Amino acid sequence: MPAVPTLLVLDADPLPRLGSLTGRARIVHADEATLAQRLPEADVLLVWDFTSNAVREAWPGEGPRPAWVHTASAGVERLMCPELAASDTVVTNARGVFEQPIAEYVAALVLAIAKDLPGTLDLQRERTWRHRETRRLAGTRACVVGSGPIGRAIAHTLKALDVTTALVGRVPRTGIHGPEDLDRLLSRADWVIAAAPLTEQTHGMFDTRRFGVMQPSAYFVNVGRGPLVDEDALAEALTRRWIAGAALDVFTDEPLTPDSPLWRLPGLIVSPHMSGDTIGWRDELGRQFVELYEHWEAGRPLVNVVDKQRGYVPGH
Amino acid sequence: MPAVPTLLVLDADPLPRLGSLTGRARIVHADEATLAQRLPEADVLLVWDFTSNAVREAWPGEGPRPAWVHTASAGVERLMCPELAASDTVVTNARGVFEQPIAEYVAALVLAIAKDLPGTLDLQRERTWRHRETRRLAGTRACVVGSGPIGRAIAHTLKALDVTTALVGRVPRTGIHGPEDLDRLLSRADWVIAAAPLTEQTHGMFDTRRFGVMQPSAYFVNVGRGPLVDEDALAEALTRRWIAGAALDVFTDEPLTPDSPLWRLPGLIVSPHMSGDTIGWRDELGRQFVELYEHWEAGRPLVNVVDKQRGYVPGH
Repeated sequence: MPAVPTLLVLDADPLPRLGSLTGRARIVHADEATLAQRLPEADVLLVWDFTSNAVREAWPGEGPRPAWVHTASAGVERLMCPELAASDTVVTNARGVFEQPIAEYVAALVLAIAKDLPGTLDLQRERTWRHRETRRLAGTRACVVGSGPIGRAIAHTLKALDVTTALVGRVPRTGIHGPEDLDRLLSRADWVIAAAPLTEQTHGMFDTRRFGVMQPSAYFVNVGRGPLVDEDALAEALTRRWIAGAALDVFTDEPLTPDSPLWRLPGLIVSPHMSGDTIGWRDELGRQFVELYEHWEAGRPLVNVVDKQRGYVPGH
Repeated sequence: MPAVPTLLVLDADPLPRLGSLTGRARIVHADEATLAQRLPEADVLLVWDFTSNAVREAWPGEGPRPAWVHTASAGVERLMCPELAASDTVVTNARGVFEQPIAEYVAALVLAIAKDLPGTLDLQRERTWRHRETRRLAGTRACVVGSGPIGRAIAHTLKALDVTTALVGRVPRTGIHGPEDLDRLLSRADWVIAAAPLTEQTHGMFDTRRFGVMQPSAYFVNVGRGPLVDEDALAEALTRRWIAGAALDVFTDEPLTPDSPLWRLPGLIVSPHMSGDTIGWRDELGRQFVELYEHWEAGRPLVNVVDKQRGYVPGH
């Protein structure tokens, strides 16, 4: 490690608060256009603009590469490329920041649907008093797909609301089902929650067949990554009432453009990729990076190290 | 008890399913117009139309009165009158049916507000992608006013969502604050939940002074009874932004008429007295009455016996 390491930041607005690193890092900023040129001088790369594909585009070029890359997101699919995966560079992510907010967001969606809050707001706009009977959430069944920290936090919160909840992961282990149980669990679930990382195995996993397996009374919620879902298949499932409804916080192409048909699908709630972003989240992401930097600077092992082949931080 | 007791039902549509009482009770039906005339012949009165004031109007008349009155509601304020309170007649209520549904409903409102779900639905209608930062619910503070089974169920559910929750009741006891702590708790709460029975002490308790004590960032939710709230005071509190918002499921006059200003107050969510009414609730109310009838018929003590002076079922 050099006396004063060079920390390259792929910028997004607002910038991270890195004042506490003054004198301990030479901080250099890059945008998507200048990243490739700046990369060789960096000891550390902070991917603050986690919506950018610039890292995986710039990485394969010439020259030295940073020893450590940290991304201010849970998913790493936008920055990963074969050259980075094959390198000695350590990749870390923002595990720990988004879990509880996303779990609360899923609980908010599930409860709002159970209690028909969208219907209540519509009727209020029309000044119409119309009593309805709504669902009791306790005793219903959820299937949470994705057994990482976000999926586990969602399962924990749903269980706290007395929802019978099954978790499905890549491999079965105690309390977690393997992929071989997925279809059976989907066919019995009142709520299907997608919270898996985007990998080759999960890309497009919610397709026509899987929506067909679900109950006509089931609701589907995606707070993972947009491409987990075949959006055309979901549109068909909603239009043909194979399932009762859905809520998407993530999409294949973000932001959704005004002409997207997804804004108006029957029974679909659309939100703008915000499930994990509670007030102060950027400060928390900045603090998390500074803490990791202090480990790195002191030569201590890093936490939140991503398995670059799998595309997420493995294990409990 | 006569060989075949006469069960008088104050009807509401749909009628209760009392088939299992065939041969064990002579079932007589009444509506608001005929209740006074039928009352003397009744051994038991089932107040199935719990929205009616007919019982307290008919009760003070001439002739014998039923030994037992059961109401298919949690609150008894509509049927109670001094003559009934002073009589030997036992009054029971529907304790046990509404607790968990109402607790879920409150959780749905609180989470929907924290995550700005109404804003998301508005933006979806406009096909506008606008990321916002929302509140983390965990670590916020709630004050639940009303320490009966409904208030306790609400507190239990909010605590399960990691909300720091205080319960306030008529008298302090373990885990429950007395009225002397109310203003201090209101002044620190992010969420104020009204779930008290309607009594002389609670009538109009949420008034200008109490809304003034709350934080400008606080939200107020009423799932108890409409007259707990001075609606003009709430309107002023919302319009002047003394508090951030509110959700009312109950009102002084129900149903709200289309010309009510409450439909359009800033930051107010209006729902039509449905928080406890999950699918199957009427069947559950019917089953509960049949079960109580079997106790009564066998001469066993009744549960859910209301303290007629206090206006609710006392104790834990």
